Amino acid sequence: MTAEPIPELADDIVRELRDAIGTEHVLTSPADLERYSRCTIPWQRYCAAVVFPDSADQVAEVVRIAARRKIPLWPFSGGINQGYGATLAPEHGAIVMLLTRMNRILEVNEKLAYAVIEPGVTYRQFNDHLKAHGHKLWIDCTDGPTNGSVIGNALDRGIGETPYGDHFGNLCGLEVILPTGEKIHTGGQLSGLKTWHVHKWGVGPYLEGMFTQSNFGIVTRAGVWLMPQPEAYNSFVYEVHDPAHVPAVFDAFLELALKGVITAKMHMINDFVSITLLTQRGKEQVNQKGCLTETDLAHLRRKYRIAEWSCAGGLYGTRAQVRHQRALLRKHLGRYGKFTFISDARVGYLKQLIALAKRVPLVRKIAEAALGTTLHVMEFAPHVHGILQGIPSDHFVKHAYYRYRGERPERNADPARDRCGLTWFAPILPFTQEEVLPFLAASKRLFASQGFDFYVAQLLMNPRAIICLMAIIYDRDDPEELERADRLYNDLITEIQGRGYQQYRAGLRGWPRVFEQAPELLDVNNRIKAALDPDGILAPGRYGIGHLPQP
Amino acid sequence: MTAEPIPELADDIVRELRDAIGTEHVLTSPADLERYSRCTIPWQRYCAAVVFPDSADQVAEVVRIAARRKIPLWPFSGGINQGYGATLAPEHGAIVMLLTRMNRILEVNEKLAYAVIEPGVTYRQFNDHLKAHGHKLWIDCTDGPTNGSVIGNALDRGIGETPYGDHFGNLCGLEVILPTGEKIHTGGQLSGLKTWHVHKWGVGPYLEGMFTQSNFGIVTRAGVWLMPQPEAYNSFVYEVHDPAHVPAVFDAFLELALKGVITAKMHMINDFVSITLLTQRGKEQVNQKGCLTETDLAHLRRKYRIAEWSCAGGLYGTRAQVRHQRALLRKHLGRYGKFTFISDARVGYLKQLIALAKRVPLVRKIAEAALGTTLHVMEFAPHVHGILQGIPSDHFVKHAYYRYRGERPERNADPARDRCGLTWFAPILPFTQEEVLPFLAASKRLFASQGFDFYVAQLLMNPRAIICLMAIIYDRDDPEELERADRLYNDLITEIQGRGYQQYRAGLRGWPRVFEQAPELLDVNNRIKAALDPDGILAPGRYGIGHLPQP
Repeated sequence: MTAEPIPELADDIVRELRDAIGTEHVLTSPADLERYSRCTIPWQRYCAAVVFPDSADQVAEVVRIAARRKIPLWPFSGGINQGYGATLAPEHGAIVMLLTRMNRILEVNEKLAYAVIEPGVTYRQFNDHLKAHGHKLWIDCTDGPTNGSVIGNALDRGIGETPYGDHFGNLCGLEVILPTGEKIHTGGQLSGLKTWHVHKWGVGPYLEGMFTQSNFGIVTRAGVWLMPQPEAYNSFVYEVHDPAHVPAVFDAFLELALKGVITAKMHMINDFVSITLLTQRGKEQVNQKGCLTETDLAHLRRKYRIAEWSCAGGLYGTRAQVRHQRALLRKHLGRYGKFTFISDARVGYLKQLIALAKRVPLVRKIAEAALGTTLHVMEFAPHVHGILQGIPSDHFVKHAYYRYRGERPERNADPARDRCGLTWFAPILPFTQEEVLPFLAASKRLFASQGFDFYVAQLLMNPRAIICLMAIIYDRDDPEELERADRLYNDLITEIQGRGYQQYRAGLRGWPRVFEQAPELLDVNNRIKAALDPDGILAPGRYGIGHLPQP
Repeated sequence: MTAEPIPELADDIVRELRDAIGTEHVLTSPADLERYSRCTIPWQRYCAAVVFPDSADQVAEVVRIAARRKIPLWPFSGGINQGYGATLAPEHGAIVMLLTRMNRILEVNEKLAYAVIEPGVTYRQFNDHLKAHGHKLWIDCTDGPTNGSVIGNALDRGIGETPYGDHFGNLCGLEVILPTGEKIHTGGQLSGLKTWHVHKWGVGPYLEGMFTQSNFGIVTRAGVWLMPQPEAYNSFVYEVHDPAHVPAVFDAFLELALKGVITAKMHMINDFVSITLLTQRGKEQVNQKGCLTETDLAHLRRKYRIAEWSCAGGLYGTRAQVRHQRALLRKHLGRYGKFTFISDARVGYLKQLIALAKRVPLVRKIAEAALGTTLHVMEFAPHVHGILQGIPSDHFVKHAYYRYRGERPERNADPARDRCGLTWFAPILPFTQEEVLPFLAASKRLFASQGFDFYVAQLLMNPRAIICLMAIIYDRDDPEELERADRLYNDLITEIQGRGYQQYRAGLRGWPRVFEQAPELLDVNNRIKAALDPDGILAPGRYGIGHLPQP
């Protein structure tokens, strides 16, 4: 939390780096270092250089320099893992390596539905590329920033939206630079293996998992499985107004997921998530210190016509299959809430209606009444419909501005640049109401006790497990709130440990506690780390593994 | 290939083992050692002891003794991995550890559809247990021996039949004893983690893959995801008589698999596979030395009314979904071959018809004519229909007796006991006709050049990759044929390497060549091996990794 002086790298090391990858690709000015040391989490350290290699060979060169000089090297694919740590290293004076220049789409195999890409490829670029070349293949994106790295998210085992939303589960075939500078291809030989990107396990020990949520190597290329464009697609929104129905809704969704009716990574958000997208605290007649009261929440729900719980998902298949899935959803869940199904045709009309309603107040009034919602909520639908077919959108990044004191930008939102405060906390639970609901109640109390609003988006990791993704949204300009945000984060970790849960993905501030209850696993990881990274230079401490190199 | 004298273990080591796990659970008599050194592959080495621990703690005890004494220890779950190596160690004088006594089903979670089992649990036992306790959950089995180990097969990354047929892909949460005797739980803490068996990746590096096709640890317990019994289920058989249609059939199956219409691990077998199940070489009027001529093959196809290619798979879902899948299969594939769809109701009638036809020749004649097949082929259907819903059957183990000189047993077939000759060779390819068909043609030529019949069963590993599982079936009592079997195996490895393919799973005879084209990967594996198994005692050489311990 302390702002330390910006560190400097010895001239000869800078020279070595510049010789290896080009002068203009090694940044060391204080302004640059400051820029790459920003994140929305309550934490501040400065790196000593930011380097941008252009190839796996250049990555290997940088790795060797760092190993020789015993300087920690922190690689990031895209570096915009906001709310978890972005391009922050936990220690002062590291070399940060960004792979954004390595953004080539090397192959798209239409027949076998996969692509081979570099870590700098973003969701937006990937989707644009497939569309521009007429491929009938869909990517899977998150609802986060459109310039997120496809590979970076997958290596942190992030989750998306479609049936291909388990991003690591749909990686197949990695090129990795080891901390010694050696290059390997997981699964098989260094070149010419024709199943590299179609057979996930390869032969011999399956090692790809080792290179996720870890610091054992730097992925410089990966195969990504893509979803063949289905004959038919619907997105749906499902709103539950009465909390008494939530247990039954959970049971029904679990059954439908296990039976394969729901194949998308369904999202289920609480009212406060919607509120952060629709407004900012400073704009509303609500408690301006601490969290919203129940009265405030009820008032905002009414004002924006939002439900206590809103779910969104996609249905994919032949026309008959999608029709049948709609019928099954209605049959099992219709009595507890309201479904809205949206097809490509309908979303087109909706966009026209939104545009018209924005200009003509009477249209707005009629449309809002007819759809039982507000224009602002209506505006989500086209973005949700797009994301659920792999078309990324920045629409949902705005939530980070909820406690931001200034006006949030309508375009080019950048929470880190604007010093918004947001920390993700992402525990995963068995997908049963018996586990999830008491935990949500306890978490809500913890949020309130530190003065924060309870933000939870539940994401279906697989039919048996659900992520309860929580955002601690705080005012970064309030030092006391900053401290409370950190305290809440730690309280939440203690809470899940007591209940037998774990994080599915941890941010920088959570790394020291990842293996708190599994020292024997940390020990195994540290042995592997020492075997592969004898100098201990690659991201020491990432997910709690490794130690700072000894000069 | 040389039969060496049976080795002896020093008395004090035997005493230590007996003290650790009980006198009767340590076998050292020559008869016992001979029994556990049998496999259908052309290879013979003797172990020095066979031990049967009863718990993870006993496994750890044995591991520590082996480490102290620097004796290679070869653990096997069930030890009936026939055609790959069963309980054989590649070196003389190892301790073989069988986990068959650890056969407890520790938990069945009906709501979240998983079970927790020990490595000694067999397919038959697992299925019987679920049925006996009224669980509406299906296991996934192979069409191999019913006493195969569920965990053992998954750890060798074997493949089954249903949508849950990627056995490693459906393991979730392992307890592992490391070569140092330490115990870890993958994914999280040693006890109390509630997502251990529902969230596959855990937190931090995903390590489970490391313990498959390797020698880094001994799995003593695992979670296995189970398939909720669907509302409707059909098995199907699809016969293609005209080889000219095969390319179009491949294209259609690829499309249907990628679109999620086919979710089962479909099997596609050639005529010779059917023949090995129906008869033995010695019983037919065919070439008795070397392989069947094309005339012989055509004669046998006619005699048993079998197609050149037969496919089998399952359809699962609601009644409407299964009906729709049938329609889609017919639409895309109906013109190239003949579909037979079998429901639970229909399989009941079929069983009655088979029983009657066996007793009444006229019924047999009429039934064979009506169904366009033979009684022998008809008899497959109930077994296929069962296996595709997780009910194992020993019906298909008989193929190993094809060149066996004696009469094959109708019950209790045991190819290893009876000294049948069979080696599996299991390359995996991209699932395109452009890759597969030329490779099959080349393989067939290699088989013929060594005097063997071309046996290939193609198994859909995932929508993008297909296993071309080949059996080299030989006469073990013909020393020259034994040598040719070994030569063919090596020729096939060279062939796939030249074409850029790999084995999805390798037998003992193939291990030295697994990493022939990827020395950099072998090197990484050896570093991990040294870090986790400093004494090098655990299955040295398994999948080519590690070296014999130095006493």
